[in-house]
Amino acid sequence: MAKPRRLKLGAILHGVGGGTSMWRHPDAKPDASVNFDVYKRWVQKAEEGRMDLIFIADGLYINEKSIPHFLNRFEPITLLSALAGVSQHIGLVGTLSTSYSEPFTVARQFASLDVISGGRAGWNVVTSPLEGSALNYGKKEHPDHDKRYRIASEFLDVARGLWDSWEDDAFVRNKETGVFFDPQKMHALNHNGEFFSVKGPLNIARSKQGQPVIFQAGASEVGKNYASKYADAVFTGHETIEEAARFYQDVKSRAASFGRNPSEVLIFPGISPIIGRTPEEAEQKYQEVASLVTIENALDYLGRFFEHHDFSQYPLDDPFPELGDLGKNSFQSGTDKIKKDAQEKGLTLRQVALQAATPRSSFIGTPEQVADQVQAWFEAEAADGFMIAAAVPHGLEEFVDQVVPILQERGIYRKEYESDTLRGNLGLAKPENRYTLHKKTVSAGL
Amino acid sequence: MAKPRRLKLGAILHGVGGGTSMWRHPDAKPDASVNFDVYKRWVQKAEEGRMDLIFIADGLYINEKSIPHFLNRFEPITLLSALAGVSQHIGLVGTLSTSYSEPFTVARQFASLDVISGGRAGWNVVTSPLEGSALNYGKKEHPDHDKRYRIASEFLDVARGLWDSWEDDAFVRNKETGVFFDPQKMHALNHNGEFFSVKGPLNIARSKQGQPVIFQAGASEVGKNYASKYADAVFTGHETIEEAARFYQDVKSRAASFGRNPSEVLIFPGISPIIGRTPEEAEQKYQEVASLVTIENALDYLGRFFEHHDFSQYPLDDPFPELGDLGKNSFQSGTDKIKKDAQEKGLTLRQVALQAATPRSSFIGTPEQVADQVQAWFEAEAADGFMIAAAVPHGLEEFVDQVVPILQERGIYRKEYESDTLRGNLGLAKPENRYTLHKKTVSAGL
Repeated sequence: MAKPRRLKLGAILHGVGGGTSMWRHPDAKPDASVNFDVYKRWVQKAEEGRMDLIFIADGLYINEKSIPHFLNRFEPITLLSALAGVSQHIGLVGTLSTSYSEPFTVARQFASLDVISGGRAGWNVVTSPLEGSALNYGKKEHPDHDKRYRIASEFLDVARGLWDSWEDDAFVRNKETGVFFDPQKMHALNHNGEFFSVKGPLNIARSKQGQPVIFQAGASEVGKNYASKYADAVFTGHETIEEAARFYQDVKSRAASFGRNPSEVLIFPGISPIIGRTPEEAEQKYQEVASLVTIENALDYLGRFFEHHDFSQYPLDDPFPELGDLGKNSFQSGTDKIKKDAQEKGLTLRQVALQAATPRSSFIGTPEQVADQVQAWFEAEAADGFMIAAAVPHGLEEFVDQVVPILQERGIYRKEYESDTLRGNLGLAKPENRYTLHKKTVSAGL
Repeated sequence: MAKPRRLKLGAILHGVGGGTSMWRHPDAKPDASVNFDVYKRWVQKAEEGRMDLIFIADGLYINEKSIPHFLNRFEPITLLSALAGVSQHIGLVGTLSTSYSEPFTVARQFASLDVISGGRAGWNVVTSPLEGSALNYGKKEHPDHDKRYRIASEFLDVARGLWDSWEDDAFVRNKETGVFFDPQKMHALNHNGEFFSVKGPLNIARSKQGQPVIFQAGASEVGKNYASKYADAVFTGHETIEEAARFYQDVKSRAASFGRNPSEVLIFPGISPIIGRTPEEAEQKYQEVASLVTIENALDYLGRFFEHHDFSQYPLDDPFPELGDLGKNSFQSGTDKIKKDAQEKGLTLRQVALQAATPRSSFIGTPEQVADQVQAWFEAEAADGFMIAAAVPHGLEEFVDQVVPILQERGIYRKEYESDTLRGNLGLAKPENRYTLHKKTVSAGL
């Protein structure tokens, strides 16, 4: 019997916002991206709303065209660790790139966060869409899209192997006999692969949840296969319930084809709800934020997806320019979609840029209307849960105060945490240590 | 006029201890190395004692001979960040190796810790003495001692350059005009060196203290030059006041030869006080801890300094064996000293091993006696401050409760923090941003 599905919720914490201009809003804290007190309050608010997790995105390259939040923000490992000290139940998930880091260090930092937080860590595995990243890491060129995913696969294999270096009962700590650990339960990985060679063991044992939860956000063919094969949870983005449901079914059936139980891959579309006492008030709040975006902001914002391409060189009201393969090696699925939409709908550059920089969420309305939408997507199997990003200042607070209670009343969202680990709250099993499992298999004569 | 010297104090937080056997003590928490609540209480205790900083050591390689604390411990960046959230004034200093990491990532993580903590971060720059580290990072071989220091020099140049990416007033955040930052105050580093090429800018601005404080602990010739040239503070270890005073003068005069003000390089010997109500009680506490160390523990402990050499192959009561160059490429100054002592004093292997594993601190006695020693070393210019490591369980608590008040009474230690940054409390100036400084120099026509 499959367990009943339960709605999940995460909060994307984005400082001054994921767009170009929310910091200009009268209610915005314009230094939020580097203000730890702001993050602390958000985490505590999300925990008050019994949300499963908070999510910190990342990037490794900036230039003068980058959006405000990217220019000056906290690094995810440090921020999540600091937030671990001031929270109790909520999951702490952050982005870290496999293209510009070492598996021993990354496995160790996430394992350490996982133990410090009592089993609440999650890692959003990305391959770094920004070509400029190579320049900050002494590399001649950014690896191509498929190679980045081959690296990411081997990287995650190594990390998972290192996380199992110690069986759960390896540390005996017997003061009388002087035996601190059982050497039979310490395991060197001895990995030698195409991209990495790592001996191990890792110098930290497993947490209460076994291993950090793996998130992934790729939406290209290669990305979807990676997510379906490796991820515990997939972070995605869709404009309509139909599109989201197609993606949901696609990833779940790919997961099954990799021999996995589809219920063990949770799908989280990102949404940016805007809530008002009336539908009109909500719409007005959207218009207020959208009006802060200038066309120059919008062109810069669009350019970032296309390897920091300069769109100011084209006439604004002509059809969207022909860009060839530009964008293929950075945000592949995102740029494909922008080009396809522009062509199919005959959009001008101005239209494409403003739409990219001020996307109109389909989650705008009264608290009941937003709760209806959330419930509809969940029940239609277009989502297992949602990642909530604030589209207006105090967007998270409003969602927690006004929408979460409705979802709780309707019985589709928890009133109390079920567990004190992230896996426990997400309904994911604790993975058994590979060596313990092997011993059990051998001793059962299998 | 030179400012009056003021005593500084740091606390080395070492989980179950820096030796082999303290975890076996009846009062020890044997899981302390992975118990965040223990670290949290220690930090809060150190802060109650108005200590300048806590210090987290590190290593990148273990095997079955490693001491208990090394096998299973927190990673420093995550631990320090978590502690930032639960402390207010104390400095947060941790070890990170320049031999197996990327300057962009390291600069960013320390900068982020520095901003999160409100200007309390410090980085102990090490080059990784353990040869095995190479095996966890896919390297054919551990770079030799001199090359490691060449890498470390360039690495720190890059980190400091990245930390100055943004002038202190770069972020304008003017909601009316829509100007978020002043592009004239954003600086790409464009570093191209022997080991690293890093474009920048860093995606986080400077903290309240400007840049993290740099610690260094090398005691070889190359190491001392590195420390004298780059470090704000030097972590060292000496058995006698005379030896400590010689080292102190040596580093201060090397600093002067690099054109630095010697008072800007603080010298911190590490000490392990053992405090009793009477001298006899203190001595008994030392004997109790020493008696927990077996000769097998001691041989393993010694072996680690010599590239995990197996000392069990030699007769215990014969003279210390001839080892040739073994140890030269790991803990160079430490192994040189062990060999020299053994030869000069005609020690056996058993004597050398037990002495290494249970060093007898010269800071054993009543609170007054320990305070006398601290004051004597400080006034003799053998130390600017001390790094306190617990040699017995509750060693830190006893030092804070019993020795600190005496030092405060005598007027040589603070009763309240002078500043809310680590630099401020250490009496170190905030370094001016290099680009701001350059502009000032140019505009003054210099």
